[in-house]
Amino acid sequence: MKVKRVNHVGIAVESLDEALKLWREVLGLEPAEVEEVAAMRVRVAVLRPGETDIELLESTDDEGPIGKFISSKGPGIHHICLEVDDIEEALAELAAAGYKLIDEEPRVGAGGYHVAFVHPKSSGGVLLELSEKIK
Amino acid sequence: MKVKRVNHVGIAVESLDEALKLWREVLGLEPAEVEEVAAMRVRVAVLRPGETDIELLESTDDEGPIGKFISSKGPGIHHICLEVDDIEEALAELAAAGYKLIDEEPRVGAGGYHVAFVHPKSSGGVLLELSEKIK
Repeated sequence: MKVKRVNHVGIAVESLDEALKLWREVLGLEPAEVEEVAAMRVRVAVLRPGETDIELLESTDDEGPIGKFISSKGPGIHHICLEVDDIEEALAELAAAGYKLIDEEPRVGAGGYHVAFVHPKSSGGVLLELSEKIK
Repeated sequence: MKVKRVNHVGIAVESLDEALKLWREVLGLEPAEVEEVAAMRVRVAVLRPGETDIELLESTDDEGPIGKFISSKGPGIHHICLEVDDIEEALAELAAAGYKLIDEEPRVGAGGYHVAFVHPKSSGGVLLELSEKIK
């Protein structure tokens, strides 16, 4: 498979407003967009310093993935997303090599991408997201 | 301050050889370099899919920062590094805004950069590294 770039790093935050005091006011990164992604039960601020985005993820539901993450581990870096040229091929190669997938089929994510997650138990504790731009 | 890009994401791994089974053999990311960074007590494999690197960090000392991280939290994403145009100015702005710095002065890191870490307690649980290419 071909990994094209680190698409983004996802950071779980308790409050976007609070987090933006650091990321926008001090670090100078103005959000390119702020959107609610209902399927993930988050509100996301996308920071775009270069080719790799930083996504600040505020939970909208304590039982959603970011809500649960913060309850158990506290806020912090949540996942890394690799953009690939062919996500179906990538998932097939991972499955064939014995890696455990959270999403066996790609689903539609934010920003015009197909996405799928690999389970951190089989990727050294790293929650790995794969994405492919929808053509 | 001006953040130019996400320079890299640091991932704590228990074994580089084991981690490279995923990152090199399945994801197809050949390490651009593998080096020992004595000051950080790690061996590092640098993956370079695009403008943002992935650094796989294997501890060479259980009492070093990665050794301690793995002992307490297990392997996983360890830090995110933002490349800035002026690290001294960035540290001064963070300190003035009340953020706690691990390194009050930049020090020489790997790959020809000055680097400094911000304490995760004051940056929402994110271990944040700043770097500036040495001119």
